Amino acid sequence: MIKVAINGYGTIGKRVADAVAAQPDMEVIGVSKTKPSAEAFVANQRGYPLYIAEINRKPLFDEAGIEVAGDVTEMIKQADVVVDATPGGIGVKNKKLYELHGVKAIWQGGEDHEVAGFSFCSSCNFEEAKGRQFTRVVSCNTTGLCRIIHAVDEAFGVKRVRATMVRRGSDPGEVKKGPVDAIVLNPVEIPSHHGPDVQSVLPEIDITTMAMIVPTTFMHMHAIQMDLEKEATKEEIIEIIEAHPRMGLVRGATGIKSTAELKEFAQDMGRQRADLYENCIFADSVGFVGNELFLFQAIHQEADVVVENVDAIRAMMNGAADAATSIQMTNEALGFHAI
Amino acid sequence: MIKVAINGYGTIGKRVADAVAAQPDMEVIGVSKTKPSAEAFVANQRGYPLYIAEINRKPLFDEAGIEVAGDVTEMIKQADVVVDATPGGIGVKNKKLYELHGVKAIWQGGEDHEVAGFSFCSSCNFEEAKGRQFTRVVSCNTTGLCRIIHAVDEAFGVKRVRATMVRRGSDPGEVKKGPVDAIVLNPVEIPSHHGPDVQSVLPEIDITTMAMIVPTTFMHMHAIQMDLEKEATKEEIIEIIEAHPRMGLVRGATGIKSTAELKEFAQDMGRQRADLYENCIFADSVGFVGNELFLFQAIHQEADVVVENVDAIRAMMNGAADAATSIQMTNEALGFHAI
Amino acid sequence: MIKVAINGYGTIGKRVADAVAAQPDMEVIGVSKTKPSAEAFVANQRGYPLYIAEINRKPLFDEAGIEVAGDVTEMIKQADVVVDATPGGIGVKNKKLYELHGVKAIWQGGEDHEVAGFSFCSSCNFEEAKGRQFTRVVSCNTTGLCRIIHAVDEAFGVKRVRATMVRRGSDPGEVKKGPVDAIVLNPVEIPSHHGPDVQSVLPEIDITTMAMIVPTTFMHMHAIQMDLEKEATKEEIIEIIEAHPRMGLVRGATGIKSTAELKEFAQDMGRQRADLYENCIFADSVGFVGNELFLFQAIHQEADVVVENVDAIRAMMNGAADAATSIQMTNEALGFHAI
Amino acid sequence: MIKVAINGYGTIGKRVADAVAAQPDMEVIGVSKTKPSAEAFVANQRGYPLYIAEINRKPLFDEAGIEVAGDVTEMIKQADVVVDATPGGIGVKNKKLYELHGVKAIWQGGEDHEVAGFSFCSSCNFEEAKGRQFTRVVSCNTTGLCRIIHAVDEAFGVKRVRATMVRRGSDPGEVKKGPVDAIVLNPVEIPSHHGPDVQSVLPEIDITTMAMIVPTTFMHMHAIQMDLEKEATKEEIIEIIEAHPRMGLVRGATGIKSTAELKEFAQDMGRQRADLYENCIFADSVGFVGNELFLFQAIHQEADVVVENVDAIRAMMNGAADAATSIQMTNEALGFHAI
Ligand SMILES: NC(=O)c1ccc[n+]([C@@H]2O[C@H](COP(=O)([O-])OP(=O)(O)OC[C@H]3O[C@@H](n4cnc5c(N)ncnc54)[C@H](O)[C@@H]3O)[C@@H](O)[C@H]2O)c1
Ligand SMILES: NC(=O)c1ccc[n+]([C@@H]2O[C@H](COP(=O)([O-])OP(=O)(O)OC[C@H]3O[C@@H](n4cnc5c(N)ncnc54)[C@H](O)[C@@H]3O)[C@@H](O)[C@H]2O)c1
Ligand SMILES: NC(=O)c1ccc[n+]([C@@H]2O[C@H](COP(=O)([O-])OP(=O)(O)OC[C@H]3O[C@@H](n4cnc5c(N)ncnc54)[C@H](O)[C@@H]3O)[C@@H](O)[C@H]2O)c1
Ligand SMILES: NC(=O)c1ccc[n+]([C@@H]2O[C@H](COP(=O)([O-])OP(=O)(O)OC[C@H]3O[C@@H](n4cnc5c(N)ncnc54)[C@H](O)[C@@H]3O)[C@@H](O)[C@H]2O)c1
Repeated sequence: MIKVAINGYGTIGKRVADAVAAQPDMEVIGVSKTKPSAEAFVANQRGYPLYIAEINRKPLFDEAGIEVAGDVTEMIKQADVVVDATPGGIGVKNKKLYELHGVKAIWQGGEDHEVAGFSFCSSCNFEEAKGRQFTRVVSCNTTGLCRIIHAVDEAFGVKRVRATMVRRGSDPGEVKKGPVDAIVLNPVEIPSHHGPDVQSVLPEIDITTMAMIVPTTFMHMHAIQMDLEKEATKEEIIEIIEAHPRMGLVRGATGIKSTAELKEFAQDMGRQRADLYENCIFADSVGFVGNELFLFQAIHQEADVVVENVDAIRAMMNGAADAATSIQMTNEALGFHAI
Repeated sequence: MIKVAINGYGTIGKRVADAVAAQPDMEVIGVSKTKPSAEAFVANQRGYPLYIAEINRKPLFDEAGIEVAGDVTEMIKQADVVVDATPGGIGVKNKKLYELHGVKAIWQGGEDHEVAGFSFCSSCNFEEAKGRQFTRVVSCNTTGLCRIIHAVDEAFGVKRVRATMVRRGSDPGEVKKGPVDAIVLNPVEIPSHHGPDVQSVLPEIDITTMAMIVPTTFMHMHAIQMDLEKEATKEEIIEIIEAHPRMGLVRGATGIKSTAELKEFAQDMGRQRADLYENCIFADSVGFVGNELFLFQAIHQEADVVVENVDAIRAMMNGAADAATSIQMTNEALGFHAI
Repeated sequence: MIKVAINGYGTIGKRVADAVAAQPDMEVIGVSKTKPSAEAFVANQRGYPLYIAEINRKPLFDEAGIEVAGDVTEMIKQADVVVDATPGGIGVKNKKLYELHGVKAIWQGGEDHEVAGFSFCSSCNFEEAKGRQFTRVVSCNTTGLCRIIHAVDEAFGVKRVRATMVRRGSDPGEVKKGPVDAIVLNPVEIPSHHGPDVQSVLPEIDITTMAMIVPTTFMHMHAIQMDLEKEATKEEIIEIIEAHPRMGLVRGATGIKSTAELKEFAQDMGRQRADLYENCIFADSVGFVGNELFLFQAIHQEADVVVENVDAIRAMMNGAADAATSIQMTNEALGFHAI
Repeated sequence: MIKVAINGYGTIGKRVADAVAAQPDMEVIGVSKTKPSAEAFVANQRGYPLYIAEINRKPLFDEAGIEVAGDVTEMIKQADVVVDATPGGIGVKNKKLYELHGVKAIWQGGEDHEVAGFSFCSSCNFEEAKGRQFTRVVSCNTTGLCRIIHAVDEAFGVKRVRATMVRRGSDPGEVKKGPVDAIVLNPVEIPSHHGPDVQSVLPEIDITTMAMIVPTTFMHMHAIQMDLEKEATKEEIIEIIEAHPRMGLVRGATGIKSTAELKEFAQDMGRQRADLYENCIFADSVGFVGNELFLFQAIHQEADVVVENVDAIRAMMNGAADAATSIQMTNEALGFHAI
């Protein structure tokens, strides 16, 4: 059993914890919080030992009736791998701690590539992650881009990608971030960081991205255009998507045309927390103008990286022969079949 | 086994179907849709026989790969009770059909009291529903009001209720309804219909309500003021809430101050579709100015009436001795314990 | 004085009325409404004779204290040109009326190209509109696209345009339309109608567009990529924009990065109704990857077509020698200088 | 001429500057900003001398092409009165500066009552402000409450006020604050600070308030219930509102039922920045249950306090004999007549 600690039990961390707990070859040896909260109660309910960043805050947890197992350092010491899911910019500060205790660590997309020196997307570069001490799982948007670009590139060659990312303003449970009634360019400058971030996984891809933020909470929407090397048909692209374990099709007969209807569908299918781990590609949007492929895909910001973290653990611990094996193990343990 | 048909497998209908299917004494003999949709696929996956309103639309379902069991009339004929969850105003038109086939029927809050001549809230008037042919489960807001008012009235006497309902603009899966950036008085006139609707269940209560709509999707918020007959303390009110099987407390230590954070909590607790069947009363809001009780409660519009429908079925079929018994059966079958 | 009637005094109509009234060579001889409303009161205040679609509704206006001048047919008879700003799909039904009375007419983008057989954008094809009986001013999005594409095409040749339009969900004063918390593909299929619509004005342009709707009320955002024939620099593009009477630059020093901040700026500058008649192009977004030009522009859906309607009137009435003359007259009369 | 400085040229400050500039007995001798922005450009355009908080930031302004007149201290020295419209919590820190230079000062509602020791609402306590050195104009919500409560109290006696305030999440030009899809209790505890704040102006009023925040940008909505001492009729209340120079009626014939439609109306009427200085009371909402008065009023957060600041200046400078005189001067100079 691989001993996994989750440092930062928030939006991403709590999902990774549940996904890890579901794996046959892994166990959650601890999760961490900084202050009492609804999530801390849930950690207790799930039976995850709860460690806290500053032990002198323990009385606050005691008062709230939340059981505390110790401080974060104690948790780190027991782990084979730490998944660091603290807020962007905090994770990098924890690196020394992980080095000190000789523990493997995975960071999230809020940290720069340099934190680990290696950026990961399971279906793209699993092999390169094998045995590593440090890995960074790229952000939700980058993960979604890498999956589809790599799959199309392998089949038909991708000459050039131009993509616009329309991003959700805040996560569903956040109430302080906006915007309320605005489309915000983020950044105004072109390209956005997403293009270079894709290149941290797929260095050879020519990609330029533009990005903005809108007042929604669930899923980013990508408007993607790719110039392909070889001729391809809509049907061939659909087949590639259907065959991919981390991409799914939103079919016309469902009547789904939006992120909101996708969430409803995820809930109705019984997905835990309405999580959509897969790229949700709108079947009717897939089309060609000459050799240019167009498509829309929705990316669940809270979920797609969760399964990637599980695969990253396995790669770093040499727990699976290849990407396909790990992905299948991860998906199966979660009862997850792409839509 | 009580044979239950769900006419109208939408926001409410699909939840009632799942709740009925979970009961030891009930089975879903069919659900109905008017056109192919994501929900129709889900009905197939769940194994609910799917009936359609207009049989000449069957080819549309065939083409989409959705299995159809027959038309709505065939479904009605096999049922002991029909839960009519068609859109408000449609349900009343189905009454003749139910009369014709001598089937019991339950309508939702979108229909007027007159459709059934009896309005139901499990913890208020279960006894009166016993053996009835027709019953109307009151709306989500009215259900939420009835629960708390009745409970407080029984303990301390309620002289007068003044409440403002701040309602969600659209259900999470709807994308056409707004508003986008507006607070809409609905209605401008005072009182709103909620007061009289409460009186359809609790005729003796003096209540005046004001209502508006805001751009959110999840839960209504009620700002409630009640003049009590007898003196009471905050602690006594908290106890009443804790003891009630359909009311729960949002405690300060969770840090939850909004509908969004409540949804996150519901998801984290593993509630199916993030459903909150209970009145979510903010513990720190409960307070007194003299004999006036104040509190905030959030009401999940999609969920609170679901468990009421199950109890209504049981009452009408004489399937439980009293409200407490039925409520416990319903809750237990759903694994539901109020927060 | 050109006698102008405005049929449909709504979002677009009321703005066109005010813009026409400001012109030295035009007068508003009437505006029309279907029912009493705040806008009808404003028409009275402004001194625009108010005509109504159905004269038997006059008592409703009388009761509200709104003065009515007669019915729409009476208004049409007195006009040289009718600007039809009724809702999309209604305008086409009025064509017979205009033909019957031999009056010139202008439709809006909600109608198809075929209604007039000619689609107009002042800076692109003013000459072709001269003397015409019927003209259609293209939609707000198409107007915004035509302006920039045509200007760049004239200077450097445009080989190919790929653009994603992120559209506001409802106009600021609407409260029924959504969405509340969703990104809606509209349409799911690619291309959206905007590409072909641009071609109704600029037939030679190779353009493919993708479109979605988000929960905002003010301005659409366009993410535009163009492959150019000739090499160009950022500075040259900026110069073209600065020189154009209907395009403006959102400069970095203003700190403006969103539609909301743009609206604030429009209000602060004293623009009537916060109207931004110009393409608002973000200076810092203008950039090149090789010969590919990238930029973001915000388009005020309620405003950009208003000045186009005024120019269309002038072209059809042979009231100005050329586009530049008309545009200058229109802008000057409105005290409008692009940002 | 009263020399007025505006320290903090933001949402409130820029409106106060324009309102002061419009008065026959006042002049704007300076406004202040901390960094280059669209508002700084507008200050230059309006001809208001622009002072900056930290003079070492002048190069930033120079580079942006914004003219700077000096630092804030220089501005203070020249002023008779400073209107401090810096963000809540900053204003109090400026008090020493105002004391040092012996200048009169007005703070806004974001500061505590104690900053000035006197809280102001023109139609309630103008007399008490005469000749004072320091005054605090109460917040937008408190101003709106004070106006209506005081007017009704004078006519019929107010025994008790219970009000729920549904507040806009962010100002229209802000893009970082939310919430996106949530109703946020603010605070969870009852009462909110609005009741005590009303008592800082009207100490004898028995008032309890509840407050929440919703994802809108324009206007707060108040649901108000008052127990009156004497019997009154709807017509009498309507008359009081019509007679009040700072309250207006939203009449049923306008069809307006929301904050969004009110904004549209304000724009259409030609109000600068769509500002609604008056309480906008929905005529059809005014009603009675026995001696209890109910009504809805919308309060434009950015505007209602602006005219109060002007009156406060006049009172402190002994520039008007009484409230009625000052209010009329202020309103007339702005061309403002309540709806
Ligand atoms: N939210 C998303 O949509 C999303 C998607 C992909 C990647 N990411 C990345 O994942 C990372 C985590 O983001 P999130 O959204 O889950 O953040 P979050 O704020 O929801 O959760 C962070 C958690 O870390 C805890 N924490 C904070 N400081 C800590 C410390 N010093 N030690 C231990 N725990 C600490 C907090 O209690 C919180 O529970 C970031 O790098 C982010 O960029 C987020
Ligand atoms: N959505 C809520 O929040 C909520 C809360 C409480 C009560 N209600 C009430 O519940 C009822 C249903 O509302 P909903 O929100 O679930 O509606 P919905 O629109 O989500 O679902 C209605 C379903 O009825 C089906 N339908 C429509 N016409 C039909 C017909 N003629 N025959 C059979 N099926 C038909 C539709 O296919 C759809 O699946 C209404 O009375 C409503 O007022 C709704
Ligand atoms: N709103 C926008 O952002 C926008 C932008 C560009 C173009 N357009 C186009 O402009 C046109 C008008 O749109 P709008 O947004 O101003 O609509 P609107 O609904 O705001 O206004 C339409 C007006 O027409 C009146 N009307 C309706 N039926 C009528 C009839 N039979 N006879 C006379 N008057 C009638 C209504 O009273 C209303 O005042 C549409 O073609 C639309 O596609 C709108
Ligand atoms: N915005 C509202 O709706 C509203 C309504 C009523 C009262 N108020 C109150 O008015 C006050 C101002 O609020 P606002 O919304 O206008 O804020 P804002 O943030 O829009 O504007 C504040 C301005 O002060 C300037 N500033 C910041 N620090 C400064 C300093 N040290 N010296 C000089 N200038 C400085 C900023 O540049 C900014 O222009 C607060 O007390 C607030 O509570 C605001």
